[in-house]
Amino acid sequence: MIKLLVVGTVAYDTIETPFGRAEHVLGGSALHFTNSASFFTDVGLVATVGSDFKLEEISFLKERNVNLKGIQVSDGKTFHWEGRYGYDLNQAITLKTELNVIEKFRPEIPAEFGEADYVFLANIDPVLQSYVIDQVKKRSATIVLDTMNFWIENRYDELMDVIRRVDMLVINEAELREITKEHNLVKGAKRLISLGPTCIVVKRGEYGVLMVSGDQIFLAPAFPLEDVFDPTGAGDTFAGGFMGYVANVNDTSIETLKQAIIMGTVMASFNVEDFGINRIKRLSYKEIEERYTAFKNCLHFGDVKFKV
Amino acid sequence: MIKLLVVGTVAYDTIETPFGRAEHVLGGSALHFTNSASFFTDVGLVATVGSDFKLEEISFLKERNVNLKGIQVSDGKTFHWEGRYGYDLNQAITLKTELNVIEKFRPEIPAEFGEADYVFLANIDPVLQSYVIDQVKKRSATIVLDTMNFWIENRYDELMDVIRRVDMLVINEAELREITKEHNLVKGAKRLISLGPTCIVVKRGEYGVLMVSGDQIFLAPAFPLEDVFDPTGAGDTFAGGFMGYVANVNDTSIETLKQAIIMGTVMASFNVEDFGINRIKRLSYKEIEERYTAFKNCLHFGDVKFKV
Repeated sequence: MIKLLVVGTVAYDTIETPFGRAEHVLGGSALHFTNSASFFTDVGLVATVGSDFKLEEISFLKERNVNLKGIQVSDGKTFHWEGRYGYDLNQAITLKTELNVIEKFRPEIPAEFGEADYVFLANIDPVLQSYVIDQVKKRSATIVLDTMNFWIENRYDELMDVIRRVDMLVINEAELREITKEHNLVKGAKRLISLGPTCIVVKRGEYGVLMVSGDQIFLAPAFPLEDVFDPTGAGDTFAGGFMGYVANVNDTSIETLKQAIIMGTVMASFNVEDFGINRIKRLSYKEIEERYTAFKNCLHFGDVKFKV
Repeated sequence: MIKLLVVGTVAYDTIETPFGRAEHVLGGSALHFTNSASFFTDVGLVATVGSDFKLEEISFLKERNVNLKGIQVSDGKTFHWEGRYGYDLNQAITLKTELNVIEKFRPEIPAEFGEADYVFLANIDPVLQSYVIDQVKKRSATIVLDTMNFWIENRYDELMDVIRRVDMLVINEAELREITKEHNLVKGAKRLISLGPTCIVVKRGEYGVLMVSGDQIFLAPAFPLEDVFDPTGAGDTFAGGFMGYVANVNDTSIETLKQAIIMGTVMASFNVEDFGINRIKRLSYKEIEERYTAFKNCLHFGDVKFKV
């Protein structure tokens, strides 16, 4: 029985960075998410791939209790994204987006997945995200949403409808500003909270994460790496660590959400050390726990002790 | 007897933000620094002003045990800076820089100031910063340096000479990148540490502060304000809180430096709430301690508790 359902894309990516080039490597929002979340909980993955997709390349996920029954193999080619990064690794330049089988994707949730306690709607058309929510059986399920600028610009009303139906958003700062037309992130997050969600997690790339939940604010910088190799999928890897951790601990208290953000940040910091999903694929629990502790040492400090 | 000596500028600023305009208000690196540091320790201020300067406007600092004997009143007008901010409050557009009496400034340190345990060299010509170090009597004094892009571009060799003579740098991220020609801040900081200083504090505006000290890294986001009114002097107010706290606790252990960075961040967060030095001028210890605690709640989190 899965605990965490994710719906999104599985892709082949062609990536160019100042440090090298990788052709047709595994990628896509749902795959990065699953690869990361599967360290913490049982994941069910729903996505579509083309007939060219080599399913054996992701069979290692089964050993981490990922249920792959939701993968639909369709006629045609797998979604392909090609991008390039300059030395400012915050910003990808998209060279090619071949939607292929994604264009006719209609996410059908296997009956056994409908019982999941946690649902992540990775970046796809908000109309499809709503269609997924319709299929979630558990009223108590915690539903978390991601999106991107394309949908904000082309499906604004549909996106707002989905936002009203979810518990949390995990989005990046530019998206939050674009949705809310508000530069200040705390104010923007509070505006979205007034629509329904209880918690907004704002990804800020190399500047870390801001969470606003009710009147509480939590701030986490990015892990201070000396070398970033390939940032592709960092945001989805973050979301996978975040939701995987929440599903593992199985509560959404503010204290758990704070730790989940740190865990997501730790997972993202590994992801950027190699192309595509490679680094997380070979990761160990020991490495995860060590980096969590090291990160805590970079962030914690004592009570004031000055004398007036 | 002062504990903390600061040498820098006292100015009249004309500031325009999207929220209003203020003409000829008190400003300058050393004044913002002193205003902030004086909450924590006895400060000696060395700077020059013109005959137009109204000394009574800064006499409130005496009540906070600031020694103003190092202020030289010279013939001519006080240094005047005029700047404008757009909605991106990270970036000031300089409209006017009238150096006036600054041009012939030669910082002479009163004999009694030479015994200070802590010295802050605010942003002035590195040749003058070296001249100040020559006058510091205590070999054990902790000397901290700030600078700006103008000196990096026009006095590079002289600046490198000063860097070799100081214990710490407090500079912004663009300056660190410009000095070291290294985009990665951790790598850049380590490069400066290899020259002599033991600790580099990197100011990143709305993204907070990074400290590298030996092989230790500390990260502090900015305080999450909903409204920033005027960012002028935030960096010097940060440095004042940072060094004032260190001088108060009187040690430079990594734990004290971490707390000092949080205190500097708290002081800077107040500074931006009103024009010039106004907010810090009317600040109370109660407000400082409350915001320190609130900030800690935005940053701290528990140990991992997931089950494999």
